[in-house]
Parts: sequence; C-alpha cells; structure tokens
Amino acid sequence: MTEDVNKTLTTPKGKFALEQHIKKAFDNIDCQEVAAVNACGVVVAEEKKKEKTLCSSKLFIENIHFDLTYFPLKHLGYKMATVAAADIVAMNGLPTGLNVSLGVSNRFSLEALEELMGGVRIFCKLHKVKLLQFEVNTSLLGLVASVSAFGEATPEKLLTRTGAKENDLICVTGDLASAYTGLVLLEREKKTFEADPNTQPDFDNYHYVLERYLKPEPRTDILNALADNNIAPTAMTVVDNGLAAAVMHICNASHVGCDIYEGKLPIDLITFQTLKELDIVATTIALNGGEDYELLFTIAQKDYDSLQKIKEVSVVGYVKDYNSGCNLVTNDDKLIPLTAQEFAE
Amino acid sequence: MTEDVNKTLTTPKGKFALEQHIKKAFDNIDCQEVAAVNACGVVVAEEKKKEKTLCSSKLFIENIHFDLTYFPLKHLGYKMATVAAADIVAMNGLPTGLNVSLGVSNRFSLEALEELMGGVRIFCKLHKVKLLQFEVNTSLLGLVASVSAFGEATPEKLLTRTGAKENDLICVTGDLASAYTGLVLLEREKKTFEADPNTQPDFDNYHYVLERYLKPEPRTDILNALADNNIAPTAMTVVDNGLAAAVMHICNASHVGCDIYEGKLPIDLITFQTLKELDIVATTIALNGGEDYELLFTIAQKDYDSLQKIKEVSVVGYVKDYNSGCNLVTNDDKLIPLTAQEFAE
Repeated sequence: MTEDVNKTLTTPKGKFALEQHIKKAFDNIDCQEVAAVNACGVVVAEEKKKEKTLCSSKLFIENIHFDLTYFPLKHLGYKMATVAAADIVAMNGLPTGLNVSLGVSNRFSLEALEELMGGVRIFCKLHKVKLLQFEVNTSLLGLVASVSAFGEATPEKLLTRTGAKENDLICVTGDLASAYTGLVLLEREKKTFEADPNTQPDFDNYHYVLERYLKPEPRTDILNALADNNIAPTAMTVVDNGLAAAVMHICNASHVGCDIYEGKLPIDLITFQTLKELDIVATTIALNGGEDYELLFTIAQKDYDSLQKIKEVSVVGYVKDYNSGCNLVTNDDKLIPLTAQEFAE
Repeated sequence: MTEDVNKTLTTPKGKFALEQHIKKAFDNIDCQEVAAVNACGVVVAEEKKKEKTLCSSKLFIENIHFDLTYFPLKHLGYKMATVAAADIVAMNGLPTGLNVSLGVSNRFSLEALEELMGGVRIFCKLHKVKLLQFEVNTSLLGLVASVSAFGEATPEKLLTRTGAKENDLICVTGDLASAYTGLVLLEREKKTFEADPNTQPDFDNYHYVLERYLKPEPRTDILNALADNNIAPTAMTVVDNGLAAAVMHICNASHVGCDIYEGKLPIDLITFQTLKELDIVATTIALNGGEDYELLFTIAQKDYDSLQKIKEVSVVGYVKDYNSGCNLVTNDDKLIPLTAQEFAE
C-alpha cells in the first residue's frame, strides 16, 4: 500500500524544463502556451470581457526561501506580497488582491502571526491591494506560506514575454545583484553569531543591500512612467532569478537572440564594493543572483529618446536574431553564451 | 538579530477566531466583510463588470493534510484540485482555472511529480478547468503544495453565507462522515502494516469510504440541478470541517440560529456500519469530521417541492431566529448546542 515515491531520483532537470515537462501533459491548458510566455496566468471566462484577471501564486518555505534567524517577520510579510505581485506587475497589470494561506507550528505565537501579517497589511495599504482570503493551517515543521496575487489589465496593456523584435533595446529597472549581496551578508553574520552569540552584527555601511533583500518593492512606478511617456514595451518579465534567466525567458518566448553588455549592467556602488570585499564577481551575481524583483523589458529603438526621461532604467543590450543565441559581451569584448540554472539541461 | 518567534505561545484560539483576528487589522480589506460571509475572495476591479472572478487558495502540507504512506499521488493531485475548487463551487461559481505551486525534496522523482500532476490533469479534463500557472520549488522536508482555484459567477448567481432567513430549510448534498471513516481505516491499516509489513490490507468492503476520502468530487452537478429546477438557494457554503462548522458559518454570517435533526443526517450504510465496528459515534463524525466537501445550503420553504426532484440532497433542519442559537435535536428529542473546533473559544 505504500506509494512508490522513494524510487531512484530521475536526473534532475532545470526548473523551467521540469515545469514545462509537467505542463506539456495538460492538453486543455492555457499554461502550455501562456505560462511559457507570461509571468502568470490569465483568467478569461468571457471572450468579450474588457479586463483580464491576472493571477500568480507563490509558495514560501522556511529555510528554503527565508531564514527566520535574520528575517524580521514584518519584512517577510511585505516581501511575500511583493514577490506574489511581481508577476502581475511584469505583465503591466495592476495588483488588486491577495490570498494568504499560512502553515504554522506551535512555535508561532499570535503576536508572531500579527507581525507577519502586519507586513502584508503595510503592503496592502501602500499599494491599494485588498486581502481577499486568509487562512491558517497547522505545520509540523517551520513556516510555510502560500500567497496568491490577483490583478487586472486591459488586453491592450497586457504585456507578455513574446513581443521582442530584432534590434529592440533591452532595458532593466533599478540595479541588480544588491539583494543577493544583502543575503550573503546576513548569512555571514548568522555564522559569526552562531560561533559567538555575544558579537553584534555591524551593518552600518550595508543598509541599502540589506533593504534590497529584506524589502523589495513592486515596480509599478516604472509602469506609470512608461505610460506617461507613451512608451509601449514590446515584451516584459520580472528579474527574479538573475538577469540571464529573465532575458532567456523573453528570447525563448519571442524566438530571438540578444547581446547583453557587461559594462552596462546596473550595479550599485555599495553592492559592487561589498561583493569585492567578499571576493565575488559582481557580473556573475547580476546575471545569476536572485531576488532583485526588477523589471526587464524590450522597447523599439524609436522610443530611446523618451526613455531618457525615466529614472532608474538602464539599457543593457539589444535583441538579435534567434540564431545568434543569447550572449554576454564582456568588458574585454569577448562573447560568452548566457546560462541560467532555470534553463539547465 | 534573532527574530523573537520562540516566545511563549499565546493561548491558541479557534482557527476561525484566529483568522478573523488577523483579518480585522486590515482596514482596506474585502476579507473583513467578505471572507466571513463568503467561502472565498472576490476579485472586482471594475464596478460594471458582469462576471465576478472568484479565487480560493489552499495549502497542502505532508503529514498534516495527507500521508503519502497510503495516499496515491494521482489521487492527491485530484483531491487538491477538488478542495481548492470547492469554495468556488460553494459560491455557485464555475471553476475555470488552477494555479499549482509545489515544494518538493529530492525524495521525489520526476515520475512522482508526473503522478501527482496527472491527478490534477484528470480533474482539469473532467471539469473543463485550465492549469494557468505551475511552478516547482525546493522543500527540505516533505511535499508542500499550494493550489489556487479561479472561477466566475454573475452577481445574480453569486451565493454567500449571508442570505439564510428564518424558516428556511437547511439542505446538504451527498452523505456525511464517509471521508473521515476512510481516513480512520487507512490510518488503522498503516499501523498494522508498520507492525508487520507482510500483512496485506483488506479493503474489500470499504471501497466507498476510501474513495470518499481519497477522491472527493466537486458538486457542480448539484449547482446544475438547482438551476434546472429554478431553485435559488438563500445561502451556501462547503462542508469541509463537518456539518456543524458549515452550519455555524452560515448562521453567524446570516445572523440566524438553527435546529439540525440528528435523525436527518445523511449517513451512508457502509459508513455507519464501519464506524460502529470502530466504536465511533456516526453523528459526531457527521457533525465534526472533515473532508466531505459536500455543499450545505438554505432554501425558502416554497422550494421544497422542487427540491424533491433533485437526487442526493437531504433536508437536515431549518433556520430559526438568532437568539435560539445553533442546536442539534437528538434522536431522543434533546436539544444540544452545536460546537465546532473552528469556533472554539
């Protein structure tokens, strides 16, 4: 009567390939076409309906996605909401609602739950999002949270990963690698603290990178700025697992290639110096670090002048034909194929 | 730098009170009014929009919600979809889409994931539901799944828990206590198997109760039958934690009381006999067992004749005024207040 779940593990494939593999088996699926090209699902019951409802669900597991040793619960609540909403924003949608399901052990007091949900509440207030459903389950070990975000977009506004065209410019918002740098610092201080609980962490110069990891923001400001300047991106997605994976998602879905310029990657000075101290190559983290939750999008070259009016957007490369592949042009002018764990063979 | 999550646990409150407590802190919330009265959230961005989008998210944690020792993965996939869709159905909505996020350890082979998602696929095919989003995360221990269901309902059709009126009849679909009975049997066989792995389980007479636990169905058939017979229920909810909790949710939200008749509780013969063998009182399980996923609804007395045309619906009591409270009328005519763990003080 035992279920055969302990058999030899099939050679692990990349996350993307694994998910695609599973999705392929569904024949009445939106996911098969849509989720390869969209950041999240689109609920459409009625053809004539003007607004499309977008939905995105994220799972957060203690000691996988967060470590409560250094992650304040209020920040965690806020971050979970940002992460769930990120896919809505990346489709040029406006987040309007959240569902939150928690699994908690008796290690969690009511006060701890209030802290966690306090962070969700701040997010809801700031971004005019409603909590639609909330439930608490028992968990034997650690905290588990499922957060689903809902949003709306008109079909004209809706952006997918499919529209990128040859010669389009590739743009990214904010800066990259800072969140991962914050995580590395927190992990380092945790080890120091475990070795000697009397030490106090010294985070004086690191507030920026810590905040980038602990409290990412949804980039709705950029969506507004793009609309104000009449720029209609041709494709968009979120940078959640590094720039390389995001670019490869757009190139895959749009059937194009790209060149990304190492020298153009937006890396903040504190991030750069901190990574140098830690003996880590900043470019690697910008390309393959995670949790930036910035937007990556492509625009037609004609929109370049208008783009100059928008703060916090960098042009990092341009779209090429499919056969060129996805490449990084290094500072010493070498062409290296981009790789991303999500696309591992 | 450690988060104070280990402080003394606040006296645990009932699940419902706990959830209400947390929700109350949200001031821009739909949840505060809606989720107390609705089975799930309602996404409404546009006032004029005809269809309302319903969304419901459920979390499934290994060894809390299911035990893989005896839960076949394909059944689990199907059941997770049924459970997530149950709240949509209970609002008289039509499920149209699902988001699935999994957390899996390396104990799970690709084949195991295929089995699990194979069950989801069967559900999608049978019930014309689309998989909108699917993603896989890492989990250190055990399987965690988050399933969100989406659906649509016109405002005229939408049913909440609020509309029950004095003298309305209280109806329940299918039968109660069978799923819990299946669970008890599976747990018993697990213990026998652990004591002596050479024993083979003997489930010959128990197929019905096992299937009720392992593969519950969404009761969309009843929604169709009600519509075909022009019956508009006044309130509706899902029986997921026993009849008592479901009735108390409707009475709370509608500000009414009720009498439920012990003799009217629909309990299948196999269920009844099996529980008797196990020395368990069937009424207790019908009221406070879980996982039936049947519908509980109230109708005006004028609809009683039409209701007779619908199979698999039982009238179990009627709505009284609020001050009467929620009571069980026992077979020997005693009045006992209904209790439910969800509403524990």
